[in-house]
Amino acid sequence: GDAPESTDFANYFCTYAYLYHQKDMLEDHKRTGAYYNACMQNREQFAGKVVLDVGTGSGILAIFAARAGARKVYAVEATDMAKSAKRLVAAQGLEGSIEVIQGVIESVELPEKVDIIISEWMGYFLLRESMLDSVLVARDRFLKPGGALYPSHARMVLAPIRSNQCRQRQGDFQNSMEGWAEFLGEMKRYYNVDLDCLSDDYRKEQLDYFSHTAAWTDIHPSQVVGTAAVFKTYDLHTLTLEELKAPLNASFNIRVLEDGPVDAYCGWFDTQFKGSAENPTTNEVVLSTAPDPTGATHWGQQSFFLHPPVDCAEGDVLAVEIDVVRRKDNQRLMDVKIQHRVEGKGKARTSCFHIE
Amino acid sequence: GDAPESTDFANYFCTYAYLYHQKDMLEDHKRTGAYYNACMQNREQFAGKVVLDVGTGSGILAIFAARAGARKVYAVEATDMAKSAKRLVAAQGLEGSIEVIQGVIESVELPEKVDIIISEWMGYFLLRESMLDSVLVARDRFLKPGGALYPSHARMVLAPIRSNQCRQRQGDFQNSMEGWAEFLGEMKRYYNVDLDCLSDDYRKEQLDYFSHTAAWTDIHPSQVVGTAAVFKTYDLHTLTLEELKAPLNASFNIRVLEDGPVDAYCGWFDTQFKGSAENPTTNEVVLSTAPDPTGATHWGQQSFFLHPPVDCAEGDVLAVEIDVVRRKDNQRLMDVKIQHRVEGKGKARTSCFHIE
Ligand SMILES: Nc1ncnc2c1ncn2[C@@H]1O[C@H](CSCC[C@H](N)C(=O)O)[C@@H](O)[C@H]1O
Ligand SMILES: Nc1ncnc2c1ncn2[C@@H]1O[C@H](CSCC[C@H](N)C(=O)O)[C@@H](O)[C@H]1O
Repeated sequence: GDAPESTDFANYFCTYAYLYHQKDMLEDHKRTGAYYNACMQNREQFAGKVVLDVGTGSGILAIFAARAGARKVYAVEATDMAKSAKRLVAAQGLEGSIEVIQGVIESVELPEKVDIIISEWMGYFLLRESMLDSVLVARDRFLKPGGALYPSHARMVLAPIRSNQCRQRQGDFQNSMEGWAEFLGEMKRYYNVDLDCLSDDYRKEQLDYFSHTAAWTDIHPSQVVGTAAVFKTYDLHTLTLEELKAPLNASFNIRVLEDGPVDAYCGWFDTQFKGSAENPTTNEVVLSTAPDPTGATHWGQQSFFLHPPVDCAEGDVLAVEIDVVRRKDNQRLMDVKIQHRVEGKGKARTSCFHIE
Repeated sequence: GDAPESTDFANYFCTYAYLYHQKDMLEDHKRTGAYYNACMQNREQFAGKVVLDVGTGSGILAIFAARAGARKVYAVEATDMAKSAKRLVAAQGLEGSIEVIQGVIESVELPEKVDIIISEWMGYFLLRESMLDSVLVARDRFLKPGGALYPSHARMVLAPIRSNQCRQRQGDFQNSMEGWAEFLGEMKRYYNVDLDCLSDDYRKEQLDYFSHTAAWTDIHPSQVVGTAAVFKTYDLHTLTLEELKAPLNASFNIRVLEDGPVDAYCGWFDTQFKGSAENPTTNEVVLSTAPDPTGATHWGQQSFFLHPPVDCAEGDVLAVEIDVVRRKDNQRLMDVKIQHRVEGKGKARTSCFHIE
């Protein structure tokens, strides 16, 4: 049956149909500015070219591409936001060069192949939402040989951090368990029903929420207490759907740079606009979501809090193995397993997380 | 296709699978206590009877029914919470009389008909979630002639209120529109893109959110500034699925009891445990969600804020017509239209709301 896909469609596209949400993304100027620069600082790449914008939303990237000199831009959007994009394109006087098409990229038809595919597909921890799948489908269906993807590359990074939120979360969990104990008392007193047989399950449920769910965080660079490991690099021109859907596994070392507890592993990503081998960009632009003293992008960083924290000393080496797999019940969400130990010291620990 | 039903299934049942959510309902003691009293104060009704609990959740109502003397209780629950219910039932030593069955009531089979159906099916503004549909299906499938529904009756109420939240919401809306204006300026300055053509749509979207969405409120009785109108009464023994699914329309008058603005219409409900004509309860219990100085139930009251408020004087009569219809895109949600005017004064106004 097609039920799971339909469910996914309804849920996934829901928020993107709101201008409120498109505004949230547009006013993330590190994000929107990076795409703007990638187009405007590489006009010779766009001049006279045919471009496809996968998931055009408000139409913004299609407009950048047209302004950078594209002859024709196909702007594909699944939701009703396509109607707003059409209006926005017309208001800039670009209806001659931009064609907005409402539909899912997996099934729309285009009258020609394209030189460039531009798309803003990144989710939390890069891969949440799995929209890169759709970009690869678009690439295989519509990109000319030698054509370029914007962005062309992506990297995933993990670093150890220090953060009060770790203790706070632990406290919230404990409060929640105290609340449960009170609740048990009430249920017993008022109705003579003993719910204690559910305490372990409740504990698990709450632990799941407080300890095993990755958190959106805006980390200050000073909180990073070790080397940042680039544990995965994607070249979007050669990446296959199969590789992308397969579980991700990586092993690497992190060097601790300060004495004290490591409260969490913090994950972020960046994407590079290098063009393709045949059509490289003149000016390489990078969109980074790394910890930044001026504040995070709307993606923030995903922090994986450790309960308890790992005690470390300057010079310690953390041997880390990370596994990222798609959730069976929802392919757009992910489970992350981090196995780690301080080399030559403690024994290995395994910490598991969901990215919601 | 069965896609919409599957979507609905996944979304609707999702939260009920968490103990956290079941706890939220259980510790609403006005709610749980009313069901407890309905059982314990009517033991002669339960003694030796066969009971069906539609949507047993944690199993609590099945336990009450068994303790009140039921010979056999079938406790049906769609989600995995059925497993917890089974455990809870066993922990009270009631596995002999309570049979927990995981499944949707529309398709489970029971080995016999039942004397009593108990269920806690009420949603915001009584009807949100549309779970009463399932109770009527259960009634038609499993209730013996003359059998009783717990609760047996439900009533919907609307009253005019005074509330600061009305002005606050208006302020939030204005802030949001100022934010949009700033955003337009930035988009123009940074990228030379003029988004003003989307301003009307953004305004509509925000108005929809701030002015046309019903709000969960905990109203103090002193805020009620007019008579409370019971505009709909349901007798669950005779109500048909057809009637229940049809649009609800009611006209009634409200007398204003204080000078000043009416900021909102406030809606709540109550349910009565009267049993059936053949098997009436000895002690009638009522579960009310009306404004209460000791605080609201977890349902609160749904307030429909008026922008601008209606200026009223003591003695004014508000002629009100209300329409409640299920949303086409999600049968569990509702649209509410309130047409109202001060008799002999201003002209009629129409205010439209979603219940989300
Ligand atoms: N398979 C698919 N086909 C078409 N549109 C898709 C899609 N998957 C996601 N989208 C759309 O892609 C958009 C991603 S958000 C980015 C919007 C816009 N390009 C910007 O940079 O501001 C959303 O509007 C979403 O509805
Ligand atoms: N059609 C259906 N079949 C079976 N269970 C249903 C159902 N519709 C809703 N439910 C379940 O009904 C419960 C309603 S909440 C009430 C739970 C419990 N009776 C109590 O009073 O505390 C939820 O657990 C929900 O999963």
